[in-house]
Amino acid sequence: MERLVTSNLKLGIIAGGQLGKMLIQEASKWDVISYVMDSEKECPAASVASHYINGDRLNYEDVCSFGKMVDVLTYEIESVNTKALKKLKEEGVKVKPDPEVLELIQDKGLQKQFYEQHAIPTSPFTLFQGKEEILRAVSSKSLRFPFVQKIRKGGYDGQGVAIIETEKDLGKLLEGESLVEEKVPIAKEISVIVARNEQGEVRSFPVVEMVFDKQANLVERLTCPANISEEQEERAQSIALKLVNSLEMSGLLAVEFFIDKRGDVIVNEISPRPHNSGHHSFESVITSQFEQHLRGIMNLPLGSTQLKMPAVMINLLGEPGYEGKVKYEGLTESMAIEGVKIHLYGKKITKPFRKMGHVTVLSESLEEAVGKAEKVKNLIKVKA
Amino acid sequence: MERLVTSNLKLGIIAGGQLGKMLIQEASKWDVISYVMDSEKECPAASVASHYINGDRLNYEDVCSFGKMVDVLTYEIESVNTKALKKLKEEGVKVKPDPEVLELIQDKGLQKQFYEQHAIPTSPFTLFQGKEEILRAVSSKSLRFPFVQKIRKGGYDGQGVAIIETEKDLGKLLEGESLVEEKVPIAKEISVIVARNEQGEVRSFPVVEMVFDKQANLVERLTCPANISEEQEERAQSIALKLVNSLEMSGLLAVEFFIDKRGDVIVNEISPRPHNSGHHSFESVITSQFEQHLRGIMNLPLGSTQLKMPAVMINLLGEPGYEGKVKYEGLTESMAIEGVKIHLYGKKITKPFRKMGHVTVLSESLEEAVGKAEKVKNLIKVKA
Repeated sequence: MERLVTSNLKLGIIAGGQLGKMLIQEASKWDVISYVMDSEKECPAASVASHYINGDRLNYEDVCSFGKMVDVLTYEIESVNTKALKKLKEEGVKVKPDPEVLELIQDKGLQKQFYEQHAIPTSPFTLFQGKEEILRAVSSKSLRFPFVQKIRKGGYDGQGVAIIETEKDLGKLLEGESLVEEKVPIAKEISVIVARNEQGEVRSFPVVEMVFDKQANLVERLTCPANISEEQEERAQSIALKLVNSLEMSGLLAVEFFIDKRGDVIVNEISPRPHNSGHHSFESVITSQFEQHLRGIMNLPLGSTQLKMPAVMINLLGEPGYEGKVKYEGLTESMAIEGVKIHLYGKKITKPFRKMGHVTVLSESLEEAVGKAEKVKNLIKVKA
Repeated sequence: MERLVTSNLKLGIIAGGQLGKMLIQEASKWDVISYVMDSEKECPAASVASHYINGDRLNYEDVCSFGKMVDVLTYEIESVNTKALKKLKEEGVKVKPDPEVLELIQDKGLQKQFYEQHAIPTSPFTLFQGKEEILRAVSSKSLRFPFVQKIRKGGYDGQGVAIIETEKDLGKLLEGESLVEEKVPIAKEISVIVARNEQGEVRSFPVVEMVFDKQANLVERLTCPANISEEQEERAQSIALKLVNSLEMSGLLAVEFFIDKRGDVIVNEISPRPHNSGHHSFESVITSQFEQHLRGIMNLPLGSTQLKMPAVMINLLGEPGYEGKVKYEGLTESMAIEGVKIHLYGKKITKPFRKMGHVTVLSESLEEAVGKAEKVKNLIKVKA
């Protein structure tokens, strides 16, 4: 039977950011009809979607009525009303990835417990009710410096995380139910995106290496392939595949890892959706992460994840000090550099460190691509 | 100065077929606002365009009022009201490629004369007023078999062409102003797509080889790289570059060539737009033909045309004997083959030999890609 019913299949995407936009760009190649629900009419995905629906992703009624319009429902952000998703699933709407998986991932505490239950390597942790309880644990010396506090629910792009190195940092502690974990002595950060479909077929993308901008706590650059040992690559991919299988999910799972100073590969966190660390795949991998996600959630055979060419990806972030109607500098000059691929998300308003676009640089040599990416980073400025 | 004014630049495309759709898919990556004008609301490009405008591309008023809505105006088909395009150009609208170039290309007679003036190799030809004049030339033996008659204006996808091998074929002669050329003893057909911008920068895509389906007179399969000598490759590319320079155009020029039995490279015909023979570039070349066309018409630096991987492209044509609401067979099975990339244009109605989509197969080995493309051709059926 033909599973891909084209010109008829309605794909619903909750939230209309850049991930939704790129998902629709791929879906349009198969003539899938796309519906996007977002509270902002001018969101990036609305410009390419077949239909835009105004709605609040945290509102039970909005999510329910949106879900009933479509055949397959997905989301491009974790903070969605899962109660509504579960109700829709009960009523027969294909909600992918599964609402139960999303619920687990929304809570960093449950995530950690899941790793523990499935013998997935992760840093030791304790759950706390709030700030006061953490301070008591510090006083009683049951919790030792340095450590990392993460709010269990709602964190995003480095928000909801406090790094506590010494007593002086205790003022940074955040309110709310938290997960506290040992601070890993990080040598490297890497990411592996894996996919699974209902048949249980799985595939892993090549490992990518992430270099962080400390100030913004956002990925500054990622490179594929990663400069790690073959053993580490295999280890990371096998852990990611074990995770996606244990979750029995459909669609993509992005797994972020630390490699510690001893060379051990440790899971940091996971996302059940396309991921910033997979943007390069649009141009550099036979099947992009967005197409693979579609294949996964639509229960189609998964595609080849072979790398076509080495790639470096940089995010285009709003310059600090600028807020308002966006103006780009340096696009034309950057386009003149061989192998530069520019993506602008179409956000009208820039803010400091807001993700406004990204650039992928392709080259036969990864070193050359890194050099070109540096040039582009210096050329393109996102101002107001 | 920043030439790419994003979130503001309005690109108008006359006609909304698959070429317009793919152009918009690329334009959306730069957040270009796309306007498409077509007489059919359900045309392929409308599903991805920012704005759909109903209009007839041959109607002077429709083209004029559409052109005034946008900053850069282009077309994805040759049969457009050029009088309107010229008027718009006069009034300051950026019409790219230039209306004068389009006018030349619309008329296969003028095209041929242009080749002659610029010493571009092409088969010897004569222009005729119509069928009667051709018959008189045959009678008087000033025209000898075999020959090819081409209607000067309006032909498309093999329409408007009569191949006259012997006296028996004379019944096939078409009415209207015609170009008659010697029938080239064809060894191979190849295509070269080149691009140029206002600065005079030029780039050539790798040569592709086309295998024709004799019955439908449509490309059956194309492969890149082409299996030709280095000398022939250089010759074809240098002719194509000479053409785009002589025309002083902005945007893409697709040049179709014959290679005759002696190995000579001869121009067949040209199109000032993205071309079926460049579809593979979406996945296999660093800059796709669609992005390159945008760069050309928007006067941006041209992008790298380096091949990422060998590719084979096949068109998905409506099966003979089926007409009506389209139904696809074999998509899911085809997706399970490594390296298969499916594009469906979203046409609701299929007809015999109508272009409904295409498939690009990527592989390290061209031979393997050809084998996989054969499999896909047997699997996917476009029925009603």
